[in-house]
Amino acid sequence: MSFLQFLVPKDKKFFPLFEKATENLLRTSEALIVLTTTTSAEERKQRIREIEHLEHSGDNITHLIFNQLGKSFITPFDREDIHALASAIDDVLDFIHGSAKRIDLYRIEQLDESIPALARCIHDGAVELNVAIKNLNGMKDVNLVKEACVKINSLENEADDVFNKAIANLFDNEKDAIQIIKIKEILAALETATDKCEDAANVIQGIVLKQA
Amino acid sequence: MSFLQFLVPKDKKFFPLFEKATENLLRTSEALIVLTTTTSAEERKQRIREIEHLEHSGDNITHLIFNQLGKSFITPFDREDIHALASAIDDVLDFIHGSAKRIDLYRIEQLDESIPALARCIHDGAVELNVAIKNLNGMKDVNLVKEACVKINSLENEADDVFNKAIANLFDNEKDAIQIIKIKEILAALETATDKCEDAANVIQGIVLKQA
Amino acid sequence: MSFLQFLVPKDKKFFPLFEKATENLLRTSEALIVLTTTTSAEERKQRIREIEHLEHSGDNITHLIFNQLGKSFITPFDREDIHALASAIDDVLDFIHGSAKRIDLYRIEQLDESIPALARCIHDGAVELNVAIKNLNGMKDVNLVKEACVKINSLENEADDVFNKAIANLFDNEKDAIQIIKIKEILAALETATDKCEDAANVIQGIVLKQA
Repeated sequence: MSFLQFLVPKDKKFFPLFEKATENLLRTSEALIVLTTTTSAEERKQRIREIEHLEHSGDNITHLIFNQLGKSFITPFDREDIHALASAIDDVLDFIHGSAKRIDLYRIEQLDESIPALARCIHDGAVELNVAIKNLNGMKDVNLVKEACVKINSLENEADDVFNKAIANLFDNEKDAIQIIKIKEILAALETATDKCEDAANVIQGIVLKQA
Repeated sequence: MSFLQFLVPKDKKFFPLFEKATENLLRTSEALIVLTTTTSAEERKQRIREIEHLEHSGDNITHLIFNQLGKSFITPFDREDIHALASAIDDVLDFIHGSAKRIDLYRIEQLDESIPALARCIHDGAVELNVAIKNLNGMKDVNLVKEACVKINSLENEADDVFNKAIANLFDNEKDAIQIIKIKEILAALETATDKCEDAANVIQGIVLKQA
Repeated sequence: MSFLQFLVPKDKKFFPLFEKATENLLRTSEALIVLTTTTSAEERKQRIREIEHLEHSGDNITHLIFNQLGKSFITPFDREDIHALASAIDDVLDFIHGSAKRIDLYRIEQLDESIPALARCIHDGAVELNVAIKNLNGMKDVNLVKEACVKINSLENEADDVFNKAIANLFDNEKDAIQIIKIKEILAALETATDKCEDAANVIQGIVLKQA
């Protein structure tokens, strides 16, 4: 039994908050999928409002984690890893929110198929992050944690390919510079969300490694 | 009397530097207001030069704080908070400088009213940061510190609204893509400056919380 | 003899990895110079593939440093400095890779002379970083370390000037907004690479200072 397995069952402070954070992220990524696939303007508006609301909830959870960190002498894993993990999850949320805000602000009517494809990568990453966090708690199942992190890494590569092809396509086919500015920025925000998801997975892999 | 109240009066190293940093920021934000409201090309040139100069001074102050951190065994608050606070103040300065540089480089003659409005948000945030730092020293007046941080948070929200409306406006009314590229980037740099100001306020709120 | 001089000869873990990291960076910057100066489409393609490959190698080295950090109780210099230095070197690499990817994706045929000029600044910075790391090991020659850092700082200033002039030029002479979007982004990625190089130098200067 590792040090962590011994300690973590006593920790009821950080893991519940991290689970809240990844569940909140999961709901946000579900709203993003609906937002990027619906054809109803009303539905779209509602999903944008929902994402805004979930982003605020995420901010609150992040603050709770930081406050807990400020008050705790003993933490289930390294303080800097707690900080980095909470920040990375918060960043995924921020970039989902950023892309949703731009879809709204730029009054994009018709979304290129690369946009729901990236939304799907983000959502799949959020599912895996949630699995990783749940099985990291008390080192329940280290293999499941590792597998989830590997999947997140390959999702990031997939998102990269989707993004690169979409950008090449955009410059090949779209002749309206203003439209290029708008679409490029939405694609970049979505792709960065998958980068941040990978950052979170990297922190988790580091935590697992230290316990090996 | 908290631990901080006991320790801080003896610390003559960090707070004077942080006060210098926020006073330097305050002067920079004043120059930004003049730069974004004047109609005189000569005045504008002078303010850009002044902001460049103040940005260098800010860099020096940040280096002094980091060097002090490297040499000090005892610090008035957590080392990572000192680092994060100094970096956030430096970032506000960098984004003010970045926007001023772009106004110059892009040869923008007529500035949309959203630009001085954002400059005003940054300046008001700098005033509050200065109040917060002065009253954090020795935990003089915790309530004043908290109030200042709340104000900075609402200024960031206000800046967000100004930014969103300005971007929507820009895409609705400006048909020249090159002009859109230029204005959008200046607006984004200014809005990011208010984000960084909020980052600084969040660090300060965390410091106060740990002493509660 | 400083504490570091005493300790470092025993450390065979971090410095070899940092040397690998800067040598990998050096090779990447050499490929960037060829990429930005060649007129052969075939050569260009090969250099882009090479940079992609070197970026992966760099990622692996960064992971090895982080893993080593997780396992080590004693480190040749402060943990946060090891983390910051490895991250900054990795960032230089990422931005070189980002600019190469864009040259490819955007199908840029003819590169403005400012682009190889920035590549040269990045390469010269990589040379100096390599010198700094080699002489930091065991505090072999502190003056060489300091000189290298000063050179990196002035290279960043030079890159800034090249960038600013190139952007002003671009907006003065290029009337195609789509072309402006493309070139501006490549220039920005290159200029940010020199910023990250300066970040690495700043961390090194901090390490030297703490040993003074």
